Amino acid sequence: MGLFAEKFETLRDLYVNELRDLHSAELQLITAIPKMAEAASSSQLKNALTTHVEQTRGHVRRLEQIFNALGEKPSGKTCEAMEGLIAEGEGYVKASGDDSVRDAGLIGAAQRVEHYEMAGYGTARSLANRLGEKNAAELLQTTLEEEGDADHKLSEIAEGEVNIAASSSRAA
Amino acid sequence: MGLFAEKFETLRDLYVNELRDLHSAELQLITAIPKMAEAASSSQLKNALTTHVEQTRGHVRRLEQIFNALGEKPSGKTCEAMEGLIAEGEGYVKASGDDSVRDAGLIGAAQRVEHYEMAGYGTARSLANRLGEKNAAELLQTTLEEEGDADHKLSEIAEGEVNIAASSSRAA
Repeated sequence: MGLFAEKFETLRDLYVNELRDLHSAELQLITAIPKMAEAASSSQLKNALTTHVEQTRGHVRRLEQIFNALGEKPSGKTCEAMEGLIAEGEGYVKASGDDSVRDAGLIGAAQRVEHYEMAGYGTARSLANRLGEKNAAELLQTTLEEEGDADHKLSEIAEGEVNIAASSSRAA
Repeated sequence: MGLFAEKFETLRDLYVNELRDLHSAELQLITAIPKMAEAASSSQLKNALTTHVEQTRGHVRRLEQIFNALGEKPSGKTCEAMEGLIAEGEGYVKASGDDSVRDAGLIGAAQRVEHYEMAGYGTARSLANRLGEKNAAELLQTTLEEEGDADHKLSEIAEGEVNIAASSSRAA
């Protein structure tokens, strides 16, 4: 949201605003996730994050397809929540200490990102359905499922590897 | 995360950091949610948000109980992601236009908040389990379930009332 109060006359205004928020969020992630992947020490985590950057590019393409069909531009909004989420992730990228503990922190930050996106795509999909935008609703649902899968994968890595390694860190 | 790189030597360091992030997030919400409730025009939405402020106070008490047992202070961290999430909600509080459309926007913002918290409590509960903090893990799980219930309630209000009213707004 910008400095000035916005005006939402119709559900379509809100829908376009939500899509722009998601587009800004995804673009920010294309820059941020590789830094998190580089900072990760677990190869499983590194791979999961790297794979997710590729998926994120696909999410941007789907959003742009929706914008094209609507005859709207994707730009014009900065997702402030994603800025804050990424700042938290960067805190773990820069942190020092035990590598596995940092990995566990990176996973927590990445899962907050995934959850933000799940909420955002859930809202956008509901709005698309209500507006009768069937094709868009399907595209948004596909991305929503990929975000959910990424979140589960991160939970598996945390519980199956990273948290176990981190709990054998010094004086854990 | 602050300006300076943090150090995480042990899983307990990370756990305390995650708990402080949640404590900061909940305190911010105690101020922010009433503004969203006041801006809402649907009485169902107003009630759901008002009820959630009371729950939020309970979440703070649970976190403080965990900090007491750990012998740690809850302060010392500002949750930047929640600052961004709340800024998005305030955008809808200040927005002009159709009341039901704004309500739909407020629900979307509130669901992003709930999802942030679900991710945060999920991480903290996993860490508590790994650290053998059984009582804390149960408290965190209870809050996690309340956040999930609040999210479902908001979906119901969106799909059962608000989005329907908003789609009959001008030129929807």
